[in-house]
Amino acid sequence: MKQNLKFTLRGENFSTMWEKQILLLPGPTQIPPRVMRAMSREQINHRGPVARKILFEIIEGIKEIMRTENDILIFTSSGTGGMEAAVANIMSPGDKALVVSNGAFGDRFKKLCQAFNIEMDVIDYPWGEVVDPQNIEDHLKNDHGHKIKAVFVQHNETSTGVLNDMEAISKARGEHPALLVVDAISSLAAAELQVDKWGLDVVISGSQKAFMIPPGLSVVSISPRAWEAVKRCTNSRFYFDFTLAGEYLELGQTPFTPALSLLYGLQESLKMMRDEGLENILKRHSQYRNIVRAAVNALGLEMLAREEISSPAVTAVKAPEGMNAGDIINGMLEDYNVVIAGGQGNLRGKIFRIGHLGYMDPLELVAGISALESVLSSLGQPVDMGKGVTAAMKIIKGGKSCESIDN
Amino acid sequence: MKQNLKFTLRGENFSTMWEKQILLLPGPTQIPPRVMRAMSREQINHRGPVARKILFEIIEGIKEIMRTENDILIFTSSGTGGMEAAVANIMSPGDKALVVSNGAFGDRFKKLCQAFNIEMDVIDYPWGEVVDPQNIEDHLKNDHGHKIKAVFVQHNETSTGVLNDMEAISKARGEHPALLVVDAISSLAAAELQVDKWGLDVVISGSQKAFMIPPGLSVVSISPRAWEAVKRCTNSRFYFDFTLAGEYLELGQTPFTPALSLLYGLQESLKMMRDEGLENILKRHSQYRNIVRAAVNALGLEMLAREEISSPAVTAVKAPEGMNAGDIINGMLEDYNVVIAGGQGNLRGKIFRIGHLGYMDPLELVAGISALESVLSSLGQPVDMGKGVTAAMKIIKGGKSCESIDN
Repeated sequence: MKQNLKFTLRGENFSTMWEKQILLLPGPTQIPPRVMRAMSREQINHRGPVARKILFEIIEGIKEIMRTENDILIFTSSGTGGMEAAVANIMSPGDKALVVSNGAFGDRFKKLCQAFNIEMDVIDYPWGEVVDPQNIEDHLKNDHGHKIKAVFVQHNETSTGVLNDMEAISKARGEHPALLVVDAISSLAAAELQVDKWGLDVVISGSQKAFMIPPGLSVVSISPRAWEAVKRCTNSRFYFDFTLAGEYLELGQTPFTPALSLLYGLQESLKMMRDEGLENILKRHSQYRNIVRAAVNALGLEMLAREEISSPAVTAVKAPEGMNAGDIINGMLEDYNVVIAGGQGNLRGKIFRIGHLGYMDPLELVAGISALESVLSSLGQPVDMGKGVTAAMKIIKGGKSCESIDN
Repeated sequence: MKQNLKFTLRGENFSTMWEKQILLLPGPTQIPPRVMRAMSREQINHRGPVARKILFEIIEGIKEIMRTENDILIFTSSGTGGMEAAVANIMSPGDKALVVSNGAFGDRFKKLCQAFNIEMDVIDYPWGEVVDPQNIEDHLKNDHGHKIKAVFVQHNETSTGVLNDMEAISKARGEHPALLVVDAISSLAAAELQVDKWGLDVVISGSQKAFMIPPGLSVVSISPRAWEAVKRCTNSRFYFDFTLAGEYLELGQTPFTPALSLLYGLQESLKMMRDEGLENILKRHSQYRNIVRAAVNALGLEMLAREEISSPAVTAVKAPEGMNAGDIINGMLEDYNVVIAGGQGNLRGKIFRIGHLGYMDPLELVAGISALESVLSSLGQPVDMGKGVTAAMKIIKGGKSCESIDN
């Protein structure tokens, strides 16, 4: 089998790879066929009545998923574009931000604040650790002059597979007037997120995660308090200007030509999500996490994030001692056509990440784990073949979802 | 027929509209079925070997179309994102730009310069007029201290259907060291553009025009001289940062997750464009222009741009005296499912614009003109029915392309 696969996969005929891959990334994620078909519709006038209907319908759907009445803006960009929009629209040069980082995407907020001349206080955690809301509370309590205008934090830190406790972080803000800006790019519709109940002022998400469509759209929710900051903001922005986008939204338009085919896809995927129900979607992602963690545990590998803080969207696994994670990732791709992600920054070569979000069948995780077992074995790791797969199957058969797994 | 169409079109079943529309916009344009199929491929790892192969192949294709050896960067954004990238990466706050504007997109460069704190000299022309290279030459000659760091100009002004003479504008720069930044969003692969031969430093294009794919990608070429300016630039940018994008390009990646499905589409459409040949593509667009202009002339309507400066991508037509252009546009949409565009800014209600670029059959223009005739007649305009269509057919049958039309 290995020989056969290599024959086609390493050749020039890459279309073979497209058809047959098992994509276990924390984004891009797999696309449901009916979403693919929806995206294949003809182009229309992006300033016409049909586009308006689609845009409004999408925004209502996103509000349901975000559990918010806040305004929703949609930008044609990756999720990082949404992060930039948040920084550039609520922070003026010289304003102070509190950036809370426990991974590569937390660090991205630092880079964005630097690029837009924002002063920063920073709370850093080792990658793989969780944000401690107490640290935020203490920091804000010491900010007597209320110099800090906004707190920037990840809900799910995609680079490490750690889920931060947004409800607790929101409470930690207390009476401090700082806005709370949340990167929920990989967490939205995978983990519980209550934008209004928790008072989250700006929440950013992206299309290529639990929304089940290709990359290219970012989504931003903006609270009334955040809009006040937008009005005062003097930072440079045009493409990502909230005010301009808000004005066009009244007309059912975006200021600039949007990625129409992705809007078609999002309209369709939101219908699927409504049919399934948000509670069910969240349960499903919890189960994915449990499947992967049980299997990895059974194989004797260590995970970067301990269970209590583990993400329902992605699991980061440490490579066995003396083994480069890149060899595992390449082996799974080349021998079994299973696509997983590597580590970022200092974690490169040390971890591999199994994405488990969006349009996924639990049995695909079994398939992915079987490839992992086989590749680990080929690389010289002592593996009790079938042990990981069996652990995964038990979770699936047991229907365990949100509960903790007895390892 | 009218009754029947209205029955389905004004109802809620908008999918009917998608299937049946004749899209005559200056973007988004129609998508070839094989491009649509290519876009329907599964998602892949955007940092993996297949994505790298696609990105490099696309960039080579774009270089051929742009006739350049300059670096090409691709951003997930509308064309305006590419315009912002040009401003934010080569101009520092306080630098002076010369913005040359003869329409709504020229004015967009003004807004971008304002947003990024760039000082501006402005040369304005009435909308519908062409840029006079002599004005640029005179202005730059008077800039004795070489304070002007860059000249910003449109190749094709999409809002008015005027094609500016980029070769002459480039020559007008003479020995002045200012960079030349060209918005070629709607002109690339519709009108002759020689990036290297004409020394164009930054050229911006978009996906939803002659590239024949949906909106969502902007393309920017950057000359070595422009890269020098990028190095010195202190303006705020992150998502659109050329330096970061250049570093990732070396790896065959983009800094942030790209709109993969659009990359698949662009890969396919560039193959089609190579098969057709750039010369043929340009001839075809010239013919479209001639078809539309002959027909409109035959109907006794006036065009905004005179023939010598007219665009091969879009034709702006003045509404007959006392008639609102919006009524014509709505009539064509509601009664015949033909989609054309309106005027922008002060031209709203005064002109309608027929787009003729990308994946288009000349006979679709005949169809569109027949709808125009009929709607004009319904609105009370004296129309000699069939006269516009006949004029169009003569051009098509005669195979006239680049030559001027005898009206």
